[in-house]
Amino acid sequence: MKNAWVSETLHSGIELKLRVEKSLYLSNSLSQKIEFVKTNRFGTALIMDGAIQTTTEDEFIYHEMMSHIPLFSHPKPEKVLIIGGGDGGILREVLKHKAVKKITVVEIEKQVIEQTKKYLPQICKDAFKSKRLELIIADGAEFIKNKSKLYDVAIIDSPDPAGPAKVLFENNFYRNISKILKSNGIMIRQSGSSFLQKEELKDNYKKLSKIFKYTNVYITAVPTYIGGFFNLIFASDKINIESLSLATIKKRVQKNKIKTKCYNPEIHLASFKLPNYIREIIGDKK
Amino acid sequence: MKNAWVSETLHSGIELKLRVEKSLYLSNSLSQKIEFVKTNRFGTALIMDGAIQTTTEDEFIYHEMMSHIPLFSHPKPEKVLIIGGGDGGILREVLKHKAVKKITVVEIEKQVIEQTKKYLPQICKDAFKSKRLELIIADGAEFIKNKSKLYDVAIIDSPDPAGPAKVLFENNFYRNISKILKSNGIMIRQSGSSFLQKEELKDNYKKLSKIFKYTNVYITAVPTYIGGFFNLIFASDKINIESLSLATIKKRVQKNKIKTKCYNPEIHLASFKLPNYIREIIGDKK
Repeated sequence: MKNAWVSETLHSGIELKLRVEKSLYLSNSLSQKIEFVKTNRFGTALIMDGAIQTTTEDEFIYHEMMSHIPLFSHPKPEKVLIIGGGDGGILREVLKHKAVKKITVVEIEKQVIEQTKKYLPQICKDAFKSKRLELIIADGAEFIKNKSKLYDVAIIDSPDPAGPAKVLFENNFYRNISKILKSNGIMIRQSGSSFLQKEELKDNYKKLSKIFKYTNVYITAVPTYIGGFFNLIFASDKINIESLSLATIKKRVQKNKIKTKCYNPEIHLASFKLPNYIREIIGDKK
Repeated sequence: MKNAWVSETLHSGIELKLRVEKSLYLSNSLSQKIEFVKTNRFGTALIMDGAIQTTTEDEFIYHEMMSHIPLFSHPKPEKVLIIGGGDGGILREVLKHKAVKKITVVEIEKQVIEQTKKYLPQICKDAFKSKRLELIIADGAEFIKNKSKLYDVAIIDSPDPAGPAKVLFENNFYRNISKILKSNGIMIRQSGSSFLQKEELKDNYKKLSKIFKYTNVYITAVPTYIGGFFNLIFASDKINIESLSLATIKKRVQKNKIKTKCYNPEIHLASFKLPNYIREIIGDKK
């Protein structure tokens, strides 16, 4: 394995290569190729169909920004829905919030949970043992149909819009998410690279801003998600991130002391300030 | 050239690969390997000693963040020094400021200017024809010795600390920069990736904060500079970025209308808000 590398082949014309110390698991079924590798520089990595899903060295950025932004934007997040999220990273972060009474994780692949527990235990830690967790193995898009006003926060932790995850980027899905949220609920999803997945961002933003009153893009940077700023989307019918003050967020964070490696109240608001080229993608004429 | 790729080999264990449509120029001297390639996804790229220096698709982020942050932080930037910057990208952005009367560019390699004019004309545009430009071919570290209080802003546009650029990361150099600045002057430099060049950031921050009263790190994300957030450093004896209001910056920007693809007043202040892991690198206990 001395000169082995793994390449991300998600985008055409640009690839990220990570040097591999050891291959831990490889399953090449008809529907999906799943790989766990120990890399030299980013710890253990999970790669699905050629796309890097997560690594133990930089996962904290994505998982914290997907969790603490909605939870500290909400005055009292008691019930949280996670669609996808089989690696347990978002669950781990949501569990840090004392206000949260129940977390429903809807993962389509039981295997993902079992494998990540085995090969990426650093990510989920003890999260799947929590008594506040309701774990459901089902298609997230099916699960949310015909349900209403159940959750304060819904976090869509899906891979890129291809294969089984494609349905999690469609109008129908977003409409059902808006129905399953309580009136002051918040929805969060990732929306890819600001350079390599511009169309995806444009499309997600357009769809969501037709359904929700307030739709905002926020950004971070994750080393193994290449392509510059990484986009996330915040959508709500009642909570306007632009009226949220730093003082309010600080108060909430102080009340619920949590340890984070990326998130803090200043970053919370700063991440919603977008460079002009991202404003342009979403048609924001500010 | 159908299956040609160029790889960045700057960091061990992680590489960025760009697909190459056409090789434009290759010079492999004893001291340096210089390559210009037309890529499929990022336009024309300049690669020096295996490190991607700039590409025509994403150069605007680095050049705008290195220029407009110091220039709009300063009440009246009339004289600007650029050390390095042979590709003309920063010069191009600085020239957008009407207040600036004179820009001194000190580039060590005349060849870099000639080559980038030829292969990357999209970057410098007409910048080198400006009457406000004083172009000096010299070693920047030597040029600034024994000079005092000449510039309002000094921008250090250097590659990574190796080879001839190494001297631009040393205590002596920073001390001379502080002397060549007027009393309310500002110094700016890049300081690499927040994941892959932590030691470099720590070292630069430590050195600069011993010399300047106010030293602050700010961040952006550039697709072809891999490793998550990309660090830049702001240092001044008089201008404290934390006391600068959004209203002041907006007023300055409105007065000097400029077209930018990345920079705006909100990003100006937001980029100084750091995630915890970067605060930790620089020992900021906020």
